[in-house]
Amino acid sequence: MNVGFLGLGGMGRGMAASLISAGHHVRVWNRSRDPVDALVRAGADAAATPAEAFRGDIAITMLADDAAIREVGLAGPLLEGAPASLLHVNMATVSVELTRELAASHAARGLGYVAAPVFGRTDMAAAGKLAIIAAGATAAIERAWPLFEAMGRRTWQLGADPVQAAAAKIAGNFMLAAAIESIAEATTLASRYGVPPAGLLDILTNTLFDAPVYRSYGALIAGRKFEPAGFRLVLGLKDVRLALAAGEAARVPLPLASLLRDTFLEAVAHGDGDLDWSAVAEVSRRRAGPDR
Amino acid sequence: MNVGFLGLGGMGRGMAASLISAGHHVRVWNRSRDPVDALVRAGADAAATPAEAFRGDIAITMLADDAAIREVGLAGPLLEGAPASLLHVNMATVSVELTRELAASHAARGLGYVAAPVFGRTDMAAAGKLAIIAAGATAAIERAWPLFEAMGRRTWQLGADPVQAAAAKIAGNFMLAAAIESIAEATTLASRYGVPPAGLLDILTNTLFDAPVYRSYGALIAGRKFEPAGFRLVLGLKDVRLALAAGEAARVPLPLASLLRDTFLEAVAHGDGDLDWSAVAEVSRRRAGPDR
Amino acid sequence: MNVGFLGLGGMGRGMAASLISAGHHVRVWNRSRDPVDALVRAGADAAATPAEAFRGDIAITMLADDAAIREVGLAGPLLEGAPASLLHVNMATVSVELTRELAASHAARGLGYVAAPVFGRTDMAAAGKLAIIAAGATAAIERAWPLFEAMGRRTWQLGADPVQAAAAKIAGNFMLAAAIESIAEATTLASRYGVPPAGLLDILTNTLFDAPVYRSYGALIAGRKFEPAGFRLVLGLKDVRLALAAGEAARVPLPLASLLRDTFLEAVAHGDGDLDWSAVAEVSRRRAGPDR
Amino acid sequence: MNVGFLGLGGMGRGMAASLISAGHHVRVWNRSRDPVDALVRAGADAAATPAEAFRGDIAITMLADDAAIREVGLAGPLLEGAPASLLHVNMATVSVELTRELAASHAARGLGYVAAPVFGRTDMAAAGKLAIIAAGATAAIERAWPLFEAMGRRTWQLGADPVQAAAAKIAGNFMLAAAIESIAEATTLASRYGVPPAGLLDILTNTLFDAPVYRSYGALIAGRKFEPAGFRLVLGLKDVRLALAAGEAARVPLPLASLLRDTFLEAVAHGDGDLDWSAVAEVSRRRAGPDR
Repeated sequence: MNVGFLGLGGMGRGMAASLISAGHHVRVWNRSRDPVDALVRAGADAAATPAEAFRGDIAITMLADDAAIREVGLAGPLLEGAPASLLHVNMATVSVELTRELAASHAARGLGYVAAPVFGRTDMAAAGKLAIIAAGATAAIERAWPLFEAMGRRTWQLGADPVQAAAAKIAGNFMLAAAIESIAEATTLASRYGVPPAGLLDILTNTLFDAPVYRSYGALIAGRKFEPAGFRLVLGLKDVRLALAAGEAARVPLPLASLLRDTFLEAVAHGDGDLDWSAVAEVSRRRAGPDR
Repeated sequence: MNVGFLGLGGMGRGMAASLISAGHHVRVWNRSRDPVDALVRAGADAAATPAEAFRGDIAITMLADDAAIREVGLAGPLLEGAPASLLHVNMATVSVELTRELAASHAARGLGYVAAPVFGRTDMAAAGKLAIIAAGATAAIERAWPLFEAMGRRTWQLGADPVQAAAAKIAGNFMLAAAIESIAEATTLASRYGVPPAGLLDILTNTLFDAPVYRSYGALIAGRKFEPAGFRLVLGLKDVRLALAAGEAARVPLPLASLLRDTFLEAVAHGDGDLDWSAVAEVSRRRAGPDR
Repeated sequence: MNVGFLGLGGMGRGMAASLISAGHHVRVWNRSRDPVDALVRAGADAAATPAEAFRGDIAITMLADDAAIREVGLAGPLLEGAPASLLHVNMATVSVELTRELAASHAARGLGYVAAPVFGRTDMAAAGKLAIIAAGATAAIERAWPLFEAMGRRTWQLGADPVQAAAAKIAGNFMLAAAIESIAEATTLASRYGVPPAGLLDILTNTLFDAPVYRSYGALIAGRKFEPAGFRLVLGLKDVRLALAAGEAARVPLPLASLLRDTFLEAVAHGDGDLDWSAVAEVSRRRAGPDR
Repeated sequence: MNVGFLGLGGMGRGMAASLISAGHHVRVWNRSRDPVDALVRAGADAAATPAEAFRGDIAITMLADDAAIREVGLAGPLLEGAPASLLHVNMATVSVELTRELAASHAARGLGYVAAPVFGRTDMAAAGKLAIIAAGATAAIERAWPLFEAMGRRTWQLGADPVQAAAAKIAGNFMLAAAIESIAEATTLASRYGVPPAGLLDILTNTLFDAPVYRSYGALIAGRKFEPAGFRLVLGLKDVRLALAAGEAARVPLPLASLLRDTFLEAVAHGDGDLDWSAVAEVSRRRAGPDR
């Protein structure tokens, strides 16, 4: 298939590479040049502007956040020049508000729009093993299916409204942040009673919490090893904010998300914004004062 | 081994049965008579009073809470008549405060004391598949080891101070409650955007949250099926209180536990105290108002 | 003085009338026509467009919120046609972000900008008895001083940066919301022990809490009389959001503001958004379940 | 009247002195001897034991907390030897649980029991200017009235059940703590935008928050002057705990009290427990990180 790809961050470059490996013809654009060059060496074409990439059969976007999407012109200008048959598949995590706006603006111009955010880290993106959550018109999702198969190990189809996928992704990220906070408070508490975090986590991840999330973040928190960042804390704060905004728009109080917001904000205020988001555990430690 | 066993609730009766099956000689006591009779039919001896059960090589207690332990006399009177060589293994979830008190009072009388709370539900207790967290003098834990092997699939040895096991168990239960609350808020949020709870949980438990806790509580919450209660909500509130009390004694702020306290309390105030503790999810739903 | 006045809501109309009474020449604009006519009868000139009002010596704006200010064109277009000597005095409660943006955009065009939000309700606006918090260049504030004297009983001058006044106003409104929530929880608690809210408030407002805020909101909460709304609950939610946004921008965690957000949101979710914001007390009542 | 008085802390000694000044015959007891001697010089008789003081027409207790009351024997032994006509007026702030227990145990022995906690600091106690909240049988309160008139500037009579007064006092103290927290967060926020705390408080205490509480605590927080402690932070934490316990017993969620608990606990964890409770404001400052 003829695919445009905008946004070659840690995730995007792996995803684009997976598409190339699967035999698709990929035209890539990125704000900075380096990742473009790397993918060109792997067989992609370079697009000099977002507009050049935003055409073909399907255009995939994997930009950083709402602001980046607006900057590139996807909330308006870029749609004007797009071919009538283009299907836009947005795989980034964005707000429910922007998702609704994009769904409406694409529909108004007769363009297809599918929201297909992903779970998984950069290594899974590179290996084509992402978990993909897709929502949008059935025909559109079917059209994009071969691309999903190239990038993911499994795709869930949620429904016809793209906001469903946006909300599901936001809810999932919120649960991740909540799990981290619970590990943080639990290990701080136990450690003050002589139970080292690694000891507590060894028990829990071999019993009730035998899940990737608890194993990976538990190890980072127990080892206080927050660099290099798998996912930066400031991005975690952004995701918590997406949950709160989605809650406000739908009038859903989310006290746990509010608590996370303040805790992440406290971490940023103490200079930990560029560490892995599991570094939020340091907030719990600090609040408990010096160990006695 | 010659074992006394006090407390034949849903968990205790399965544990005592496991000991009998393993060939130990077990003398059982319970406040109500029925479970005693059932175990006698399985080969146990009946103890007419707590004191009669609180002797032999090892006495195991699996009573409901701090109050039940005090009522039976374990915080004092019962220790007076105990044989000098008795080892008391307390497998119930109790406060760090009572744990410290019991450790001290047993030591003052030369009696051994091991805290060995468990993770697992009644079916795992009956099958001898519990996860056991033990703390106390090494020699004492070694003495009790054959009993742990009969009741559990694995035992973790945490250290010489019984409070370590109490704190680890309390921290684990807190994390369970936190996981339930995060599922509750996430599913309420997603459902207001057209994603049914079961759909969200299908994605999450097949990706990041592939853990027993999320599967089991997720299913209950998605199905709004809170009876019969696997673990009663009022007991969940009690456990959150144990975490808060442990935090206060060690000066560890636990904002997430505080949030859980208020949420569980709201559930109890609305008459849901005897439902499964995953029914706390109804609080999130109710707070979000009628669906629109 | 020759004054333009944009925004004739409940507050703005009283403020404009105070200016007319003080002998100033006032040209008024409002989105809807009725309040314009009323003020014309009192001696104002009508402006047909925002641009017509945004000139003279000083233009005062008292628009509803950030969005209304942007809509009218104050974040850009309106500034283009403004006379070089114009001083813009924004007396509405707006975000710190917009305040910074307006300060910069006015400065870039050589226009003066003063932030001068007010405390006080509509009756105080009509009586020229507002409390005014002004920040901006000293010379600019001096120029506006006669107008402040016409509209207020007292004006505080905070400093040269308009964001100081915006932040002070936001902080004050947050404290109001916090006081309401504290009354709500306290009266709910006391009432469950047989102390009627009015009884509790009689004690407190005659002792430690002998302040207008506690007297007025206390009476509304005790009487459960939330209509007509002195200040609508949805606007209270907006103000809490302004505090949270200001906190995020300056990296100040505000757990109490977060709690207020969720409580106000719960009130809105239950259909109480158009009641007086003291109706947030009903959330506390409801959470405590039916009285027993 | 013939009055026994137990508990001569900062408050109690002023109250007992007020009784002596009013011409009553007062027999005083205190755990430590110094305050007894001082009052004897002022005209009191010394009681060598609590039992000696717990007789006469009326016995007033002003002990530190629940534990002190139990220690002295008021939850049982002391009542045995009391004369049948004795009226016990407990003016300390105690839990609703203990209040109920004392009301019942006194009634069982035919003794009168009135709960009459007070608002006011030590200087007001010494000046006989306390605000007194009394609940208990009408006849009993009438009997104690001359004493209330000697100690207070005004007494509120709440009803026949002593728990009403206990709950009202606990609710009032909770509101004080909430006001302090709101000042803390508001001043931290404003200060990060260039508004000094004293400047913000000057505005607020001259407008909406023109109340003793905001003036006094505002000054302490703005000046960061937390010694000597007017009311120690650890006692503030105790009072928040009383509110939470009262909430739990009546099934009233109190999210703001929970937030206060964690904030006070964080202050204690950082070594500020013996400062004035307004020092809890330092927690907000610290959470916001170093000023930039």
